[in-house]
Amino acid sequence: MTVLAVDIGGTKFAAAAVTADGEILARAEIPLSGSAPAGDTLSEVVARITATVPPSELKGVGVGSAGPLDHVEGTVSPVNIPSWRGFPLVDVLGEMLPGRPVRLAGDGQCMALGEWWRGTPDGPVSRAMLGMVVSTGVGGGFVLDGVPYVGPTGNAGHIGHITVDSGGEACPCGGIGCVETIASGPSMARWAGSNGWQGDDARALAADAADGHPVARLAFQRAADALATAILTAAALLDLDHVVVGGGVAAAGPALFDPLKRAVERNAGMAFLRRLRVEPTSLGRDAGLFGAAALVLRAT
Amino acid sequence: MTVLAVDIGGTKFAAAAVTADGEILARAEIPLSGSAPAGDTLSEVVARITATVPPSELKGVGVGSAGPLDHVEGTVSPVNIPSWRGFPLVDVLGEMLPGRPVRLAGDGQCMALGEWWRGTPDGPVSRAMLGMVVSTGVGGGFVLDGVPYVGPTGNAGHIGHITVDSGGEACPCGGIGCVETIASGPSMARWAGSNGWQGDDARALAADAADGHPVARLAFQRAADALATAILTAAALLDLDHVVVGGGVAAAGPALFDPLKRAVERNAGMAFLRRLRVEPTSLGRDAGLFGAAALVLRAT
Repeated sequence: MTVLAVDIGGTKFAAAAVTADGEILARAEIPLSGSAPAGDTLSEVVARITATVPPSELKGVGVGSAGPLDHVEGTVSPVNIPSWRGFPLVDVLGEMLPGRPVRLAGDGQCMALGEWWRGTPDGPVSRAMLGMVVSTGVGGGFVLDGVPYVGPTGNAGHIGHITVDSGGEACPCGGIGCVETIASGPSMARWAGSNGWQGDDARALAADAADGHPVARLAFQRAADALATAILTAAALLDLDHVVVGGGVAAAGPALFDPLKRAVERNAGMAFLRRLRVEPTSLGRDAGLFGAAALVLRAT
Repeated sequence: MTVLAVDIGGTKFAAAAVTADGEILARAEIPLSGSAPAGDTLSEVVARITATVPPSELKGVGVGSAGPLDHVEGTVSPVNIPSWRGFPLVDVLGEMLPGRPVRLAGDGQCMALGEWWRGTPDGPVSRAMLGMVVSTGVGGGFVLDGVPYVGPTGNAGHIGHITVDSGGEACPCGGIGCVETIASGPSMARWAGSNGWQGDDARALAADAADGHPVARLAFQRAADALATAILTAAALLDLDHVVVGGGVAAAGPALFDPLKRAVERNAGMAFLRRLRVEPTSLGRDAGLFGAAALVLRAT
């Protein structure tokens, strides 16, 4: 069986035709442009797939989208696509491939599910896993005993919006001192800029951290501390054994993972927390596509 | 069907014979004494039940215990019962009632399950519920779609040991600024004492808070803020719809729940968090016994 997988992030749309064995038969990605209507970009990325794999061979559609989601209505309202407030994503995809099931989950949830299905972690198969995307925003998802846990409204895994600094900044979500106010790429670059660093974005910040720039390194340390607190919080609540971290900020590699692993190790007090493995994604940008495909391919 | 339910807390042992309809046929409770061996107290409280309901009628044993637990070995190591490091609780109860299944969960997990099964919340049945015990310690458990979520090692729900103040006190668990360092009864009394309040314990503190003593009220405000942060964190991760709070500190009533509900309302930013109901236990001290019974009666 082959399905259409769609991954809608804050800055790009991606799609793929994925087989039940985890083979990608076709793949397309289009950056999200400020000018083109997002619905047109969605049509175009799907058309590139169906040009290679005929629609008749696609037996379902799995889609991961930046949130929040409304599972009852099948709509999404990605924060970074302002024109998509309540966009009827499930209906629109259903019209593109009539008669096929369409399954929707959050982008962090799909990343977690993709890593669980196709990732190659060190150690045993996870029974309680968190996948995190650290990028323009910070999101996540859980896979518990092989099944995505999405919650009653489909919004489980909002790890970017838990408070890690109760005296911290107000977050656009309405909370205070959320992980995202410290550890998202834009937050890190903003903090570094206000502390004398001169650069454009988190990518430049990562390069400078790798070169030993002290403010850049401190920005990654702060982000790592916030992420470690969030990870240990989720682990204490859900008895996690495995955390996989992807996204643009995670692509910085050791600049993030060295201080992150140290902070997790330092603060993991209770014995059951000490088995936790924290690893970078092994699938890179494909994790979300594999997870979206798995929504259909591994539906129970 | 009738089962034996056992609830082992930090300061008392309780047991009951509970029917599948949720009727309590016999009930016993013994305070945990510093001098008597805890194993003897356990035997005594079970003997009081079997004096009324013959062992032949008890078809299984459900037990909730203060943690941490080791589910593989069936042992418990309650922090407040120092002589019980690695106590083989499952084997000992199995010897008291040979041939019966013995099921073990954390005390917070049982409280949550008991509330889910027998509690009378306002509003619809919960699909994602957190039960919290705020007492000598702070613990909790989750019931997701009617099933306790205990995690791979059985330790899910450790909400007392998530960091809510990253600049706060070291916690005996090894973490920093855990909920329990602010919101447990002893922590509240200690903080109030170091700020000029004169009194013995959290019970006296609750009475003074109800009388308007400013330091006592502030101690409850601090605890409420810490609990609200923890509750909203769990809700963002697990998409919770319902939180039930019990335990000795919760028995203070409005002194805790008024500031707690205000803090939850003030800081619940994302739309899906705003449906969260936060309520006191409706079962009082029986919640843990009902939950322990449900481990057997509602096993799938």
